[in-house]
Amino acid sequence: MNAASPGRHQGDYREFYRGRRVMITGGLGFIGSTVAHQLVELDARVLVVDSLIPEYGGNLFNIDGIEDRVRVNVADVRQQSTMNYLVRDHDVIFNLAGQVSHIDSMQDPYTDLEINCRSQLSILEACRRYNPAVKVVFAGTRQVYGRPDSLPVTETHLVKPTDVNGINKAAGEYYHLVYNNVFGVRACSLRLTNVYGPRQLLKHNRQGFIAWFIRLALEDREIQIYGDGKQLRDFVYVDDAADAFLRAGASEASNGHVFNVGGGDPISHRDLVDLLISTAGTGRSRYVEWPPEKKAIDIGDFYADSSLIRQTLGWQPVMPLREGLARTLTFYRANMERYVPTTESTVGAL
Amino acid sequence: MNAASPGRHQGDYREFYRGRRVMITGGLGFIGSTVAHQLVELDARVLVVDSLIPEYGGNLFNIDGIEDRVRVNVADVRQQSTMNYLVRDHDVIFNLAGQVSHIDSMQDPYTDLEINCRSQLSILEACRRYNPAVKVVFAGTRQVYGRPDSLPVTETHLVKPTDVNGINKAAGEYYHLVYNNVFGVRACSLRLTNVYGPRQLLKHNRQGFIAWFIRLALEDREIQIYGDGKQLRDFVYVDDAADAFLRAGASEASNGHVFNVGGGDPISHRDLVDLLISTAGTGRSRYVEWPPEKKAIDIGDFYADSSLIRQTLGWQPVMPLREGLARTLTFYRANMERYVPTTESTVGAL
Repeated sequence: MNAASPGRHQGDYREFYRGRRVMITGGLGFIGSTVAHQLVELDARVLVVDSLIPEYGGNLFNIDGIEDRVRVNVADVRQQSTMNYLVRDHDVIFNLAGQVSHIDSMQDPYTDLEINCRSQLSILEACRRYNPAVKVVFAGTRQVYGRPDSLPVTETHLVKPTDVNGINKAAGEYYHLVYNNVFGVRACSLRLTNVYGPRQLLKHNRQGFIAWFIRLALEDREIQIYGDGKQLRDFVYVDDAADAFLRAGASEASNGHVFNVGGGDPISHRDLVDLLISTAGTGRSRYVEWPPEKKAIDIGDFYADSSLIRQTLGWQPVMPLREGLARTLTFYRANMERYVPTTESTVGAL
Repeated sequence: MNAASPGRHQGDYREFYRGRRVMITGGLGFIGSTVAHQLVELDARVLVVDSLIPEYGGNLFNIDGIEDRVRVNVADVRQQSTMNYLVRDHDVIFNLAGQVSHIDSMQDPYTDLEINCRSQLSILEACRRYNPAVKVVFAGTRQVYGRPDSLPVTETHLVKPTDVNGINKAAGEYYHLVYNNVFGVRACSLRLTNVYGPRQLLKHNRQGFIAWFIRLALEDREIQIYGDGKQLRDFVYVDDAADAFLRAGASEASNGHVFNVGGGDPISHRDLVDLLISTAGTGRSRYVEWPPEKKAIDIGDFYADSSLIRQTLGWQPVMPLREGLARTLTFYRANMERYVPTTESTVGAL
């Protein structure tokens, strides 16, 4: 199957967005801003909503080049009255605001609950009351599956999260499905695996390992691989992930469903690091023992079966991993100072 | 298989509770107070914690006969500092406090979230910090499964709740499993189906239909059956359900697991109502259209496969439905004024 193969909504979904009013929560973040860039290309009217909490992934530089073609509203999804106002008059909401650190969720479960669970309910209540005709596409996560019982993981796999973040993300996703089924607020969820690419947070290492590995490679530092590094994962380039959002938002067939959004062939951590170092030409690797607090919530091998979204929405990833990594490295080489604090003391504190 | 068949923990689990310090959240409620009665018989030292929120199931009369042999602490599980104090020095916590109305959860999702989701996290955080050696048994619900894909429903069935209550109960349950797996706070969950028996709330009809049907039969009123009444359900007598809690609390084999706690043979609503009316000798039935707000969150046929808890903990229900209903009717005939407001105006407002 290749990128040109026919899907039910292939082609027309991009035209759908011309002139549409689209809101993106977490719109200054990694994936949200990439969705914004694609929507601007398609002549949508884009409202970017982001809290710009310093520890999180929102970054004004992420809309560099489109800053005059989107509106930015700094707001926190936990602020219900603000959400009640902002959701109005939009055709589609891409709902990506979230606390994404698994480790943080175990140290401060309440903040994770407020953002990933309660705020999702607030957004849906706002839609139900003030914009029931909107379509909402939620950024779910493969974390809800926990340690897989079988591979590749399909959407019929049990939900059994291994950490608080996974639980709250599962609840946030379920709310979307219930509001779709019971209140008619059309909604669906994309369970993303490991997304990588330009515009991802690099300033600390608590939001997934791939961006951190990229930073270490670029800084010619040592990349630590936990255990034997044989655990398998699949990776999705951020433009491919954003394309899944656009397809889901334009389709009625997605309503009430969850879809895995995974990469092509899985790759082991060790092979990924080798590929990254050889592509970058800098960095080195070392194998270390698992830190206990990370081992406790690790999910082992994971790769998703994305055939449901391929069949339903015609989506499939098109970016090869090597090329995606090369583009990502090029992006950060040009823009590193926008993503990493320049003071040594800050870097040293990480 | 019969009640005397050997289970791994058959017999000794009752002895386990002698002198043990046991806390029951929701301990003045229907199931919680039944657990308290059984624990007092076994010479446990019981702390009953209940919020006594008027709309909920807590009722001081539920500990009639054992009120001098338990301690009662009125408190709300949403009050973290109180929970931090109360969890200390207990060997087992039976964690039954909850908002149990599905309909209420759709009208006020935040209260449901606070009680069923956030408060569970608070209780577990309290245990983690102040009593990590405790064992926690959580009152889960079959509602987390939503509309079954296959029957009978086993624990490997997908979690896909049809309402906000089911989502928050699922999250509350997942927290228990994660705290067991990651923080070593031993915990398990019992996914209860339809529990019936003495001491259940009768004052309004928003907490499941069976108690309400019993009240209508006792008052010789009309029982409305939605649709054709052919939907199947399984019913567990409350003493059997309480026995499942005792077994789970005394066992190490339950740690980190969820167990269905279901009845024997499923029965249709229509047959249940016929049995109830014939047992009571009062009441009558009428078939009516589904109210849309109830149809939207109905789960159709449901009955559980409880073989996992039978195999693991030796539990099985022993009370036949007819006898259970007869005992329940006898209890309420003697104590109706303790469960139903006596003013006609209150009854009329329901």
